[in-house]
Amino acid sequence: MSVSLGELAVRFGCELRGDPQVRVERVATLANADAHSLAFLANPRYRAQLADTRAGAVVMSAASADGCPAAMLVCENPYATYARIATLLHPLPPLAAGVHPSAVVAGTARIDPSARVGACATIGERVAVGPRAFIGPHCSLDEDVSLEADVQLMARVTLGRAVYIGARSVLQPGVVIGGDGFGFAPEKGAWLKVPQIGSVRVGADVEVGANTTIDRGAIEDTVIEEGVKLDNLIQIGHNARIGAHSVIAACTGISGSTTIGKRCMIGGMVGIAGHISITDDVVVTAGSRVSHSITSAGVYSSAIPVEEAHTWRRLVARFKRSALLDARLRKLERAAGLAPTQEEDHD
Amino acid sequence: MSVSLGELAVRFGCELRGDPQVRVERVATLANADAHSLAFLANPRYRAQLADTRAGAVVMSAASADGCPAAMLVCENPYATYARIATLLHPLPPLAAGVHPSAVVAGTARIDPSARVGACATIGERVAVGPRAFIGPHCSLDEDVSLEADVQLMARVTLGRAVYIGARSVLQPGVVIGGDGFGFAPEKGAWLKVPQIGSVRVGADVEVGANTTIDRGAIEDTVIEEGVKLDNLIQIGHNARIGAHSVIAACTGISGSTTIGKRCMIGGMVGIAGHISITDDVVVTAGSRVSHSITSAGVYSSAIPVEEAHTWRRLVARFKRSALLDARLRKLERAAGLAPTQEEDHD
Amino acid sequence: MSVSLGELAVRFGCELRGDPQVRVERVATLANADAHSLAFLANPRYRAQLADTRAGAVVMSAASADGCPAAMLVCENPYATYARIATLLHPLPPLAAGVHPSAVVAGTARIDPSARVGACATIGERVAVGPRAFIGPHCSLDEDVSLEADVQLMARVTLGRAVYIGARSVLQPGVVIGGDGFGFAPEKGAWLKVPQIGSVRVGADVEVGANTTIDRGAIEDTVIEEGVKLDNLIQIGHNARIGAHSVIAACTGISGSTTIGKRCMIGGMVGIAGHISITDDVVVTAGSRVSHSITSAGVYSSAIPVEEAHTWRRLVARFKRSALLDARLRKLERAAGLAPTQEEDHD
Repeated sequence: MSVSLGELAVRFGCELRGDPQVRVERVATLANADAHSLAFLANPRYRAQLADTRAGAVVMSAASADGCPAAMLVCENPYATYARIATLLHPLPPLAAGVHPSAVVAGTARIDPSARVGACATIGERVAVGPRAFIGPHCSLDEDVSLEADVQLMARVTLGRAVYIGARSVLQPGVVIGGDGFGFAPEKGAWLKVPQIGSVRVGADVEVGANTTIDRGAIEDTVIEEGVKLDNLIQIGHNARIGAHSVIAACTGISGSTTIGKRCMIGGMVGIAGHISITDDVVVTAGSRVSHSITSAGVYSSAIPVEEAHTWRRLVARFKRSALLDARLRKLERAAGLAPTQEEDHD
Repeated sequence: MSVSLGELAVRFGCELRGDPQVRVERVATLANADAHSLAFLANPRYRAQLADTRAGAVVMSAASADGCPAAMLVCENPYATYARIATLLHPLPPLAAGVHPSAVVAGTARIDPSARVGACATIGERVAVGPRAFIGPHCSLDEDVSLEADVQLMARVTLGRAVYIGARSVLQPGVVIGGDGFGFAPEKGAWLKVPQIGSVRVGADVEVGANTTIDRGAIEDTVIEEGVKLDNLIQIGHNARIGAHSVIAACTGISGSTTIGKRCMIGGMVGIAGHISITDDVVVTAGSRVSHSITSAGVYSSAIPVEEAHTWRRLVARFKRSALLDARLRKLERAAGLAPTQEEDHD
Repeated sequence: MSVSLGELAVRFGCELRGDPQVRVERVATLANADAHSLAFLANPRYRAQLADTRAGAVVMSAASADGCPAAMLVCENPYATYARIATLLHPLPPLAAGVHPSAVVAGTARIDPSARVGACATIGERVAVGPRAFIGPHCSLDEDVSLEADVQLMARVTLGRAVYIGARSVLQPGVVIGGDGFGFAPEKGAWLKVPQIGSVRVGADVEVGANTTIDRGAIEDTVIEEGVKLDNLIQIGHNARIGAHSVIAACTGISGSTTIGKRCMIGGMVGIAGHISITDDVVVTAGSRVSHSITSAGVYSSAIPVEEAHTWRRLVARFKRSALLDARLRKLERAAGLAPTQEEDHD
């Protein structure tokens, strides 16, 4: 399909600097766009590519507009406007409603007639599937699962007993929601399994990345609030609660019974301890460890960037000898007749 | 179902402080229990919730009993006793023995008649499935796999050729046991695949969390001993051995040919190098890196908790300038006529 | 099957020190080999096991040959030679060409008659499967996927729309290639999904480990070049490019739009930031964080090995008080009439 720049400007509330008759057919990067493509500029890292772009049009903010050789669709939030135009130019194939003959659907399941159940999907007793929901191939929905309208389970998603998924949420392939939480009581040198009786409630407009796991609650439910976005290979422990519109990057682990506030941004490969609470609007940068509750909004870090390995080994060796540094300072202070203040004297 | 406190006290060896006729129907948290619910107190973090609980009864230790407004089932190990009562009050649905018609079972497989093979499961040649074993939907068992009695493969578990699973072990959805180990020989700038001929032996009473992977051995088997509990998204490399009753939290990686002792507790997101050995009764706290063998039982750490990001950047900058600290100390020592001791003088 | 040492020496270009008539039937470790087994010595950690081995023959380098009690196949690259002999002695079962009756294959898919499609696999419209390709049970190939000759999808591999897999590549169970990249535009306190229109191109001779995820590109393709080896539970973000013959160990995360050069070796549980570039021949040791581009080949690190926990806590406390160290040094320097050089005075 193709759309004129004039129509795009009107539909998405942009200021058009260029010919409204020009048409674009697809999106492309600034570097590789041609005259039939629409590109965008949102991340300043890619500003330098603007001068040489051959795009038919570029979506961008007024502040970046200088020296753009192409037609411009100027708006306040170019990334969001780009997302909308890309959705228009690259529509998903229409949903083929109905149940694939190879799917196995329990007699008491209620599948909305406008929903799609893909090949080899298995649907347990009393499952409820809402309008226009998409259940991809190889998905497995255990008893009493509920999917609201327009949910998309891309492929091979596993939902345990009584898991609830809110409207429009998207679960990428390999997601497991509602596996047992990790609960074992120590007894006589072994570990006794503690039944995991709760389930998982996922709000509306949530995205869960490929192979991410969210465990069912021990007694009450694990909760993912509306608008949360989880990347791939994330672990969410039992009874955790992730606040609305928080985003979590890949490979991060949230331990059990921990609460994350609203609008938090948690980087990749962050580890968050169990039974703690992180307030709203907290940013944790990639690779950090959170071992205690965070009660003030702000940015928190604890990762150290790489050094050349030989230098790094010397840094670590010095770090591990830091008691000696202290001792040398004390000797010098004594020699100089200087006493450390009480604040300085922790060791 | 409901059970009287009197019966619970007798069955589970508790001292009852309260009316033996009172009946409970389910378990609940201290905060949300009602008069028909049984709660428990094991983690002192939740002690404060005791005063206001409306639970019908609370399982707890004698030491915590003061000021509890509810009936009490007093015992030495309240978490284990709670686990047993929860299992009684919330029984799993009975196993429907038999093979689902959509399952694909090879002619030479031997499935015990009391076992269950779920929808769309695939069972290879010469697989042996023991009594009362549960094979959930979408599980895939390659040739020569053996499952002992009462094994549970929750859903979508993949077991490679000749994998052995001991009695009563529970594998959560998405587990992969017996994928090829990561073995490649460097040769002329490329990597030649080394056949992974071993398999994996998993002992009795093991639990493996969702999407965890355990690789097959290069020559001999990778071994998970009895009673081990593995959380979600853990990687166990080829030829590793995990000692009996060790527990490992989510997102941890154990490299190939490494041996972990018995009764170890490994935190989440721990990285353990290959070809090393960790003795019995070692605790490694979350987020730590183990690069050498550990020969003494004890607790080991190397993670640094988060700081506010601006403070953190200054800490890292100072850390990376630690050679300058050393130099400044030396100057001062020279000026003061103090020589560092040999121990201090590593750099 | 069994092979004589004489034949092995000729076929694989080894110098035989021993009886050419002796035959071996299988491979084994030095410690557990018997007279019918062939072992190898490549890692010097296992040198001590050589003296006691009862192997029928050992593959090794000339430098290690002293004191070996067994026949020797001496060669320059014993690990690669071992790999070839192991492949000969332990051949994979022959591929049973054809489509399993339980597989679901779209009408427009083209499956080479010499290929194998396993039980419960699902194959979308216009998929192309090359000669001798193996598609294991429960694999899911979305529309327009292409597999070149001799590709192996071991089991339960999910390939999203239009994913391309080069010849001879091997994908272990649970791999997800072509899930949506993690792209969301912030707008009015929520996150708007950005369509992920690109796909994933995987080159020839690539291996991808169990449950690893590789996201589809936002606009252009995510690219894994030929000969790359990825271990289990790795995350590759959208639009990343991994250079030819690079190897990445388990649990590592590569953020979106990052480029890794050729022949890099990335350790386990490494986190690499987005939108950066790592040049060829870079080694990053396990557990490190890479937050900026690396422009010189070399070895890079930032992980700290464990200490006993009490010692570690004191180290961390001292580290976090490093501003006080600085202050104490300054006082001493003032007292001694020494001024820090400009280089020293960053804080």
